[in-house]
Amino acid sequence: MRMVDIIEKKRDGLSLTKEEIRWFIGEYTANRIPDYQVSALAMAIYFQDMDQLERAELTLAMAESGDQIDLTSINGIKVDKHSTGGVGDKTTIALVPLVAAAGVPVAKMSGRGLGHTGGTIDKLEAIPGFSCDMETTDFLHQVQSKGLAVAGQTGNLTPADKQLYGLRDVTGTVNSMALIASSIMSKKIASGSDAIVLDVKTGSGAFMKTLDDSTGLAKAMVDIGANVGRKTMAVISDMNQPLGEGVGNAIEIQEAIDVLKGNGPEDVLELCLVLGSHMVYLAEKASSVEEARKQLEEVIENGKAVEMMKVFIESQGGNPAVIDDETLFPQARYQIDVPAVEAGYVYEIATDKIGVAAMQLGAGRATKEDQIDLAVGLKLKKKIGDRVDVGDILVTLYANREEVEDIKDLVQKSYHMQEGEPAPTTLIYKEIYPKKA
Amino acid sequence: MRMVDIIEKKRDGLSLTKEEIRWFIGEYTANRIPDYQVSALAMAIYFQDMDQLERAELTLAMAESGDQIDLTSINGIKVDKHSTGGVGDKTTIALVPLVAAAGVPVAKMSGRGLGHTGGTIDKLEAIPGFSCDMETTDFLHQVQSKGLAVAGQTGNLTPADKQLYGLRDVTGTVNSMALIASSIMSKKIASGSDAIVLDVKTGSGAFMKTLDDSTGLAKAMVDIGANVGRKTMAVISDMNQPLGEGVGNAIEIQEAIDVLKGNGPEDVLELCLVLGSHMVYLAEKASSVEEARKQLEEVIENGKAVEMMKVFIESQGGNPAVIDDETLFPQARYQIDVPAVEAGYVYEIATDKIGVAAMQLGAGRATKEDQIDLAVGLKLKKKIGDRVDVGDILVTLYANREEVEDIKDLVQKSYHMQEGEPAPTTLIYKEIYPKKA
Repeated sequence: MRMVDIIEKKRDGLSLTKEEIRWFIGEYTANRIPDYQVSALAMAIYFQDMDQLERAELTLAMAESGDQIDLTSINGIKVDKHSTGGVGDKTTIALVPLVAAAGVPVAKMSGRGLGHTGGTIDKLEAIPGFSCDMETTDFLHQVQSKGLAVAGQTGNLTPADKQLYGLRDVTGTVNSMALIASSIMSKKIASGSDAIVLDVKTGSGAFMKTLDDSTGLAKAMVDIGANVGRKTMAVISDMNQPLGEGVGNAIEIQEAIDVLKGNGPEDVLELCLVLGSHMVYLAEKASSVEEARKQLEEVIENGKAVEMMKVFIESQGGNPAVIDDETLFPQARYQIDVPAVEAGYVYEIATDKIGVAAMQLGAGRATKEDQIDLAVGLKLKKKIGDRVDVGDILVTLYANREEVEDIKDLVQKSYHMQEGEPAPTTLIYKEIYPKKA
Repeated sequence: MRMVDIIEKKRDGLSLTKEEIRWFIGEYTANRIPDYQVSALAMAIYFQDMDQLERAELTLAMAESGDQIDLTSINGIKVDKHSTGGVGDKTTIALVPLVAAAGVPVAKMSGRGLGHTGGTIDKLEAIPGFSCDMETTDFLHQVQSKGLAVAGQTGNLTPADKQLYGLRDVTGTVNSMALIASSIMSKKIASGSDAIVLDVKTGSGAFMKTLDDSTGLAKAMVDIGANVGRKTMAVISDMNQPLGEGVGNAIEIQEAIDVLKGNGPEDVLELCLVLGSHMVYLAEKASSVEEARKQLEEVIENGKAVEMMKVFIESQGGNPAVIDDETLFPQARYQIDVPAVEAGYVYEIATDKIGVAAMQLGAGRATKEDQIDLAVGLKLKKKIGDRVDVGDILVTLYANREEVEDIKDLVQKSYHMQEGEPAPTTLIYKEIYPKKA
């Protein structure tokens, strides 16, 4: 096979065969195909797209390009959850103990990553003593014995995807639905779960800004899941404002614990119940999504959910006393209220800017080398639809520096007011299932 | 500026500015932009194309990326001619002395290249003693004193084009009209002529197989010429069969000399008169193309054309006695006739295959390292429209090996016969001029 023939075939709008896809991913990972041919192919894919079978093959080829986690030693159907990312999205932290409390084994590999706040691993490390560093055997053993574990990605997971993504990032080929969907799904497949629930965000704070694009991505991923034999569904949820109130690391853990206790923000709780009930249903621990939801509501009510959080924290070396004593979390030195400078109803929040504000306080990394400050972040006191008077507190900043005028200014500019009450917001837009074969 | 922004801009269908084009060509030639970004941009250009101004800027940027020939010391309007290449195309060899005999100064840089036969330089070296190696000052001096010179490309002409073409060749991005036209024109611009006559071939033996594609390329190049201030026109000529009779190196020189003597094949003569008359007209040595044609017919008739060939050969160290004594050319050891195995009228000749046959005899290079055999080649005894009986000679091979069964077979398979007489062929399809501003 010659790479130039594969490029021309795709350029001319033809479908690549399984053999062609396997060959180029294999050769590229082995550094036997130069970047300049792969970037040309990526651009051809950007314009000509890939059909469902090509996407499935690309996903499998990338999943199999490195280590793969073998979860077969754990009893039951293992369900993974993935979010395309947003501001204030702490659902994973709450969902892990929540669905584990409903009897679903949770074996989750997670990352740190760049962004407005740390990744799930960073956030969990805000719990004193908590560690996600563990050998695979310990990880599997903990899931089997305790019902849940979250480990940092170790080893060489999907190297082809890492290599390809790095190239796409500098060649204008990130925004290909085929490549985005395959990239996400390859990591999920390599992580070894039997079923996958996807939370695809839509709106100003999301990677996909429009409902059309989000729906397209969700369908693309669900189709890949179906074609590679993993039960997959997707929920399209709102990211036109931050999820819940808190944005940060320790701050988001606290909010997740509140959800497990039954007193978290309404939107976080609802999204956790929707995503969680699909996870429980796919794990076959309930005969319907509705029944699964009832189970989750029950484990929150009867305390089993927060009890599972305690088990989770203890199992990974953390201090479970944080559940009842927030002062045990890293504390920011300053709490600074940001007042409204305009009156009216909040009808829009520039979600990205709120994220940037949290990042500027030190909650996230801009480059791999940046240190995260686990204590800092912010809490939204007003959200879309709230009535605000001049001087009302919009946001409270949690900072380790006193001088935050630029951040206050950024937050104030993120809020947009209007005179009349805006239409109610939507949290869940759609649920996407695979087409029946 | 960032290359990724330029890639994304083109990917999204926007026009690049002069500054962006200049910047990326400059940075690429200086090896400060990696191949993988340039190949992604080339693929984006393949899909989104470039408008006329972008093409002109790209052409100029590549022309100015290396050395440029300064012909201003030569009096008069210098006219260059370029052919997109075909089998048996010896027009340059005949045109150089032909238009020089009509008073047009000809300062031609030429190449060797890969192909069915050698390039113009290789062909000329079939004349014993002839050399195209000369310093620029000698080259200019010869044009000024003798009226014509052909030199091998020296120095660092259009390095950006060389680098880009090498990359396009392995990334499926050769077939972009914008990139093909800019590549050809950049070399013509760097070669310093004031006016350019383009011979764009069309048909089974051409780079562009269809009249539409050939017309598109011709228009693209003529537009670039107009936009960079060079008088440019194009002729679209037939390449559905080899031009003339001979295919080879010495063999094609002999045919060119026959044309200058007035007894060359009809089609070669006609194409030379058409291209040449446009060259003479653009050089302002005639007040109309028709008048220019008459001048050329005259210099053939009165012997000035063949006399100029003699001057040309002598000036570059060759033995002018070849003009009257063909045996002074390198001679192939064997002349082998290929008989027809089928009767009928020739209605199609697989031109590419005839070229391959010449190449397999040793007339051309497949790789840079290959040695050319200047003596070998073939002569077509039957062309489209000719009536053939079984056993009639289709082609005579000039070979330096006795065993040529495979080549005979290839030639026989290149000829397609039918019962009735086919429609007459067309030699010149169109002439393309710049749009009036």
